[in-house]
Amino acid sequence: MTNKKLGRQTVALQTPPAVIGSASIVGKKEGEGPLAATFDHIGQDDTFGERSWEKAESAMQKLALSTALSKAGLSASALDYLLAGDLLNQCIGSGFAVRGQDVPFFGLYGACSTMAESLSLAAMLLDGGYGTIIAAMTSSHFCSAERQYRSPLEYGGQRTPTAQWTVTGSGCVILSHQGPGPFITHVTTGKVVDKGIKDAANMGAAMAPAAYTTIAAHFQDTGRKPSDYDLIVTGDLGQLGRDIVADWFRRDGMALNNLSDCGTLIYDLEGQDVHCGGSGCGCSAVVLAGLLLGGMRAGRWRRILFCGTGALLSPTSTQQGESIPSICHAVTLDMKQGGI
Amino acid sequence: MTNKKLGRQTVALQTPPAVIGSASIVGKKEGEGPLAATFDHIGQDDTFGERSWEKAESAMQKLALSTALSKAGLSASALDYLLAGDLLNQCIGSGFAVRGQDVPFFGLYGACSTMAESLSLAAMLLDGGYGTIIAAMTSSHFCSAERQYRSPLEYGGQRTPTAQWTVTGSGCVILSHQGPGPFITHVTTGKVVDKGIKDAANMGAAMAPAAYTTIAAHFQDTGRKPSDYDLIVTGDLGQLGRDIVADWFRRDGMALNNLSDCGTLIYDLEGQDVHCGGSGCGCSAVVLAGLLLGGMRAGRWRRILFCGTGALLSPTSTQQGESIPSICHAVTLDMKQGGI
Repeated sequence: MTNKKLGRQTVALQTPPAVIGSASIVGKKEGEGPLAATFDHIGQDDTFGERSWEKAESAMQKLALSTALSKAGLSASALDYLLAGDLLNQCIGSGFAVRGQDVPFFGLYGACSTMAESLSLAAMLLDGGYGTIIAAMTSSHFCSAERQYRSPLEYGGQRTPTAQWTVTGSGCVILSHQGPGPFITHVTTGKVVDKGIKDAANMGAAMAPAAYTTIAAHFQDTGRKPSDYDLIVTGDLGQLGRDIVADWFRRDGMALNNLSDCGTLIYDLEGQDVHCGGSGCGCSAVVLAGLLLGGMRAGRWRRILFCGTGALLSPTSTQQGESIPSICHAVTLDMKQGGI
Repeated sequence: MTNKKLGRQTVALQTPPAVIGSASIVGKKEGEGPLAATFDHIGQDDTFGERSWEKAESAMQKLALSTALSKAGLSASALDYLLAGDLLNQCIGSGFAVRGQDVPFFGLYGACSTMAESLSLAAMLLDGGYGTIIAAMTSSHFCSAERQYRSPLEYGGQRTPTAQWTVTGSGCVILSHQGPGPFITHVTTGKVVDKGIKDAANMGAAMAPAAYTTIAAHFQDTGRKPSDYDLIVTGDLGQLGRDIVADWFRRDGMALNNLSDCGTLIYDLEGQDVHCGGSGCGCSAVVLAGLLLGGMRAGRWRRILFCGTGALLSPTSTQQGESIPSICHAVTLDMKQGGI
């Protein structure tokens, strides 16, 4: 058996899976931002026709899955597996979206890193020979997240300058053995890092060490350098977290001039009053499914390192005085299946 | 590339991974039950030295991981991946247990099916060539679950006859390419099934259709029959759910005389006042790590179908009048690496 491990955290896929379909569904605010043209569907009132925010979140996932399948010319029964997760307690956003779908399901929890986590596992399952078509999906909803993590919407709480805005959105990506690409060539899996940040309104600072650690591990494991990538994109550190990561690499003598963040891309940070930017499982998912994959297909980027970052806290852990454990998973998206 | 899929939901592993270590950590009540002698560690007061039930749950996971590693003669840095999950909101039982551990981590959520889910993915990752040693782990804690899902412990709420008792426990299983076994030869992945049960105090009835569907799919995909197994064990349907599954197979003309359930095995149902039996991510994990793997090594069973069952509800979904989506993942444990 070939060992596909490169170093401690990275695997190089033998037959890099191709993206054969993707869809991004977002809410009204996201549809008013700079990436509006890249989304497949923009909801008009964030309810998606449902009677609760949680049901609305499931409805977005269902729409993301059916849209991605339809764009790939497939039905759900063509999927060997679906891997999905979200931020809601007991991941009900995904569980209820997948209910009754004719597809073997693995539920994941990686907070806002879940899109990268689901892509990582989907790519490895395909490359390992466990099927031919696999979907990866996540979602978040501002209104379901706000009342679960912070305060009821009606409370109208003030937000601190380091706060991020949970994206209302769901992204779905379908992978297969064959297709025009982009291809997933490498998977770098994160460790849980906690440098003691306790401010749940400063997730960027809490997650930056995880992002730094995983990106550094990716370079070390693969022997690549930042300039081998057209774009290195975290999701979702926001403005502050992104700047911290850039600073640390600069300190190491490595300029990450091509570092961006899904949380800063999705909103007009000044004009949309979102402070440090977007967050939530859905943020990196819709930026990936829309801007990033679209941009690669259009020739804007040939190779992207997509780094999902997640803060593994809960309101209970914060109330108990705990700091915030974080994780970052990275996958390489390459227009060439053979890589460099 | 070899396609390892057998039918819709099952894969046959090419090089079935071996169990090289396992550990089961339980609380006081579990230590007073019929399986006491099979556990590695029985806590005396369920706090495991911590100041909150949530921290106690993480402490159990840490102890399960370190005990399993120690029994296998390994350190955490030998693990290529750790896959873990639990029932707590945002899976903090696992996130905080893994914090600072030197191991790439995938977080999972499959409710009480998580032990089977983590074993499934761990086995496929190993068989696919993505490393040589992988750990799978879950936990649950009666006190953290009770106050999260139901009422504060101090409330002393009455339990209905169909209720199950959340197990305080954590199980960890370490897999590798080589070892004396048992081996994981097949993985049957569940779909999300919901037949409309809305009573969150009757999880057995809610999960029975998922268990029936996955076990039936396993027989269909593999061409095997119930008598090919020494034991078919669900976890955790409890007494009622187990009887429903047995009834349905009887209706199909198939007697599952060898059907048991981790939730009925772990407690003395009459003597320990647990109504329908045990439940929780930790239940099937500690029964597997203790009784089942130990019994296989001792020659009591040669082949077991281990079927983790999970109810993908949350208190919020129940309050919103939703029924209970459920899932069941099955893995075949065989003392012969080559299977039948």
